[in-house]
Amino acid sequence: MSDKPFTFTLPGTGEIRPSRCDSHIERCLTSMRGMFQDEKAYEAMLAVEDKLLYEVFEIRRPEAVGELISGISVVHPGLVGNEYYMTKGHFHSVLATAEIYYCISGSGCMVMENPEGECDVEWFHPGTVLYVAPRWAHRSVNTDLDHDLVTYFVYSGNAGHDYKTIETYGFHQIVMHSDKGPVVQDNPRWKGVRGAM
Amino acid sequence: MSDKPFTFTLPGTGEIRPSRCDSHIERCLTSMRGMFQDEKAYEAMLAVEDKLLYEVFEIRRPEAVGELISGISVVHPGLVGNEYYMTKGHFHSVLATAEIYYCISGSGCMVMENPEGECDVEWFHPGTVLYVAPRWAHRSVNTDLDHDLVTYFVYSGNAGHDYKTIETYGFHQIVMHSDKGPVVQDNPRWKGVRGAM
Repeated sequence: MSDKPFTFTLPGTGEIRPSRCDSHIERCLTSMRGMFQDEKAYEAMLAVEDKLLYEVFEIRRPEAVGELISGISVVHPGLVGNEYYMTKGHFHSVLATAEIYYCISGSGCMVMENPEGECDVEWFHPGTVLYVAPRWAHRSVNTDLDHDLVTYFVYSGNAGHDYKTIETYGFHQIVMHSDKGPVVQDNPRWKGVRGAM
Repeated sequence: MSDKPFTFTLPGTGEIRPSRCDSHIERCLTSMRGMFQDEKAYEAMLAVEDKLLYEVFEIRRPEAVGELISGISVVHPGLVGNEYYMTKGHFHSVLATAEIYYCISGSGCMVMENPEGECDVEWFHPGTVLYVAPRWAHRSVNTDLDHDLVTYFVYSGNAGHDYKTIETYGFHQIVMHSDKGPVVQDNPRWKGVRGAM
């Protein structure tokens, strides 16, 4: 991998792909089994089509201290039952590492929690920068049913991804669609023991 | 300092100030003595007014491994002699730490070099992301004489700033204004020994 500086261009409005991309990850319904509230709706959707829920275009750099890894996250619009399309969400393997998100287009939110069970939801609009403090797990949720939520993220090269904790327990909070817009609720399917951590 | 996530908004077109700012640095002509080619032009300008050349609005975080420090850099438009307004430029104190710049508005370039004397100049336009590889010193130059160059930067909390090396030697390359636009040239006032490093 080159040790020289380089540039690329973020996607413009209505676009999702940066001008440079070293890896492209596509996450479909099948890879999100067990994460949505409404299992019947999930199975019914999957029987028709394994829909693409979100994509990541990554600018690869060494997974090392001192490096910064960045890329574009695109959460497509849609619902599984009354729950918005979202990412799996993760802690960092090196827990005490921050991440920064910049919202390029669309709107939605980041559902976050730390190992102590503190929760936070912050909202994205074009131009918003979100600072995800070290130790906070994070999941992007697209609350606009007509447009992609497109964000640019930056994190330390050594951070790594811990998906397993969230796959096992879920997030404490969920974001559901209602006639009045998105509603943040406690997750009735959260699998930890409240107050135990 | 809070350990919780937070959001803020980048400046829009025609703006320079983010919605959150923990420190505001203003760099005027006086703090750039010896950095421009044309010393007569510099002294003549300074005799009239200690002009503001650039500003930094920083989102403060602990200067620690795992943290990300970010902010807005604004290089105002103008010339000292035939040389564009620019930042001091610096290496990171922890040399092998990367930095990412996102160009919000304006145009210009980043003059860069590593301790081995390799040089690179990369160009900014709105939407450009610049990845400054670990070990590369970097200086922003505004080559648009009518508009601010506004960038958003992110670097590791532990990176630190080494201004002294550049203050002592200068950069190998400079960016001069000409009728045909900006021209990158070898710096005749560079104070190191070429080929010695």
